[in-house]
Amino acid sequence: MPITDHVKLFIPGPIDVSEKTFRAFTRPMIGHRSGDFKKLYGGIQPRLKTLFGTTQPVFLSTSSAWGVMEGAIRNLVGSGKVLNCMCGAFSDKWFDVSKRCGKEAVALQVEWGQPILPEQVDAALAAGGFDAVTLIHNETSCGVRNPLKEIAAVVKKYPGVLLIVDTVSSFSTEAIPMDELGLDVLLTGSQKALALPPGLALFSASEAAFERAATIKDRGYYFDFIEFKKNQEQDMTPSTPVISHIYALESKLDDIFTEGVEARYARHAKLNGLVHDWVKSRGFEFFAPEGYRSLSLTCGKNNREIDIAEWIKRLREKYHCVIDGGYGKVKGKTFRISNMGDETEETITELLGWLDDTLEA
Amino acid sequence: MPITDHVKLFIPGPIDVSEKTFRAFTRPMIGHRSGDFKKLYGGIQPRLKTLFGTTQPVFLSTSSAWGVMEGAIRNLVGSGKVLNCMCGAFSDKWFDVSKRCGKEAVALQVEWGQPILPEQVDAALAAGGFDAVTLIHNETSCGVRNPLKEIAAVVKKYPGVLLIVDTVSSFSTEAIPMDELGLDVLLTGSQKALALPPGLALFSASEAAFERAATIKDRGYYFDFIEFKKNQEQDMTPSTPVISHIYALESKLDDIFTEGVEARYARHAKLNGLVHDWVKSRGFEFFAPEGYRSLSLTCGKNNREIDIAEWIKRLREKYHCVIDGGYGKVKGKTFRISNMGDETEETITELLGWLDDTLEA
Repeated sequence: MPITDHVKLFIPGPIDVSEKTFRAFTRPMIGHRSGDFKKLYGGIQPRLKTLFGTTQPVFLSTSSAWGVMEGAIRNLVGSGKVLNCMCGAFSDKWFDVSKRCGKEAVALQVEWGQPILPEQVDAALAAGGFDAVTLIHNETSCGVRNPLKEIAAVVKKYPGVLLIVDTVSSFSTEAIPMDELGLDVLLTGSQKALALPPGLALFSASEAAFERAATIKDRGYYFDFIEFKKNQEQDMTPSTPVISHIYALESKLDDIFTEGVEARYARHAKLNGLVHDWVKSRGFEFFAPEGYRSLSLTCGKNNREIDIAEWIKRLREKYHCVIDGGYGKVKGKTFRISNMGDETEETITELLGWLDDTLEA
Repeated sequence: MPITDHVKLFIPGPIDVSEKTFRAFTRPMIGHRSGDFKKLYGGIQPRLKTLFGTTQPVFLSTSSAWGVMEGAIRNLVGSGKVLNCMCGAFSDKWFDVSKRCGKEAVALQVEWGQPILPEQVDAALAAGGFDAVTLIHNETSCGVRNPLKEIAAVVKKYPGVLLIVDTVSSFSTEAIPMDELGLDVLLTGSQKALALPPGLALFSASEAAFERAATIKDRGYYFDFIEFKKNQEQDMTPSTPVISHIYALESKLDDIFTEGVEARYARHAKLNGLVHDWVKSRGFEFFAPEGYRSLSLTCGKNNREIDIAEWIKRLREKYHCVIDGGYGKVKGKTFRISNMGDETEETITELLGWLDDTLEA
């Protein structure tokens, strides 16, 4: 395919990667057991901890976030049950993946587009016998932002129940302080708001998570949390890591801390507001109820019953960019617009103009 | 770290990535469920099949090869035993990983540097009750090349025993025809002879492998072979793939088929011969016996008892390149020189001159 055939992505990941990031991405290879690598990994650790809001080490997994999502099940769920909070395509799938790992999984299912409420989690956990809860903070498929703080407080009422949180599409767009909230696993991926290419997952885990893992025998190797910890203590990863992505991550951390973490969060909130305003003013409704809407992407409901696929086709042809036309069973019934990564008021305003132009066609 | 600080790698992976590959590596992102991605993955499939010597599809895993090595255990080993052929650091570790997956693993252990012999495999399998055998074709840590064809013939005598072969450091340096040899899993990684950055593993599997997988319940999701197959049928991967590496792979396949597959094999054999001759003529012995030496790297024995670490330090300082100073328990007792990837007679001859210059210092 021609290299010039660039279609800018406003889908909720992967998103566009900057030229600066790509320059870091193509630095020469180094041995992954070398001093050069240790310096690289060790060097980014403090800033990663700040972003994760934890004193625990942050681990780098050469995989998509799904690998760590499966790994968290294998490491934290033993003979007890896992409660999977389900409100969209990805959280539904986590239930399926839990079962595929041979675990006893219990579904806490709400309608797609609705949030998981703390009282629902409380009622489910009251049955007893749970090892862990899985929660997707920002259910990307539906643009639902679950009340993480309130749910974490509920889980804390149940000793021995560990909370695994996927922040794939919310990480680095708002504060998610792992230690303060008492999360046991916080995980994310590279290709969403971090605006890196896909292929790297990042996670951290509490002491309780490691204690649990130590009691489970068949947690495997590639996603073994204890193996990650043992290697991180020497600034290394268990297996050969995706070095280029780690170079790119280092460069992106420079960007994030130059902008300022709080300024970055404020920028994402502001851009999200611009898209929200546009959606509302054009007569669209939102797929998620007020108070539970994602800050990193906007999921509009197709209440105007337009041909979403045709709209995106026009957008692609005329403006060489795309938004998303709905995921899985809500394809065509919803649309999603990302405001993640390096976007600015200027680029989002420009996009909204293009959306207007192609919507009316 | 400064981008200009380039140390050329003659270690057995990762190795240097060419500028051409890096140009492909930094093509703009695309959605992984888009037509663009399907075209990319579908487009490279025929050439991948040729390299693997199979009519089966070739799968792309966003992981290091270890992920697929663990996946092969989870997918092919049920309640039966797995025989792990062990002759070095990586094959030894596969035994450990098999046990960590909760499987009954049996060690066929030979001394590091010695090959696995077909009669040893035969004797071990005669005990009965095996689901699978793991074999590392080219044990990178010791420079041992195991007699794959002969071992595969032995395994064929035992119906129901599947053969899993790691060709991480031999793939694309010599013909390894999967279907002709009757291999059930053939797997490799991106950062060895393919000269791509680390982070992508490639594998293919026989019909018998899929039939076995279908009988195993807790094989998980991320490395589930059946999930890979189901997605590949639509030119997709189960999880968000490491897109940049797939761009780079496409570019590398262009290179390989432009050079010609046979010419590529001949080049690697020739360069390997140059390094072998140098090692011998400088009074070093080989770590592996004749007839069982790797064609993609050379593992010399430090019978001259030189200070290997100091030698490599001088090489790095004076010529900005490195060879490897031995792995694990043979560190300092061996050294390894890679002839993988894009090297030529000119670059290898130049390296040998540098080795001479720094060896005598």
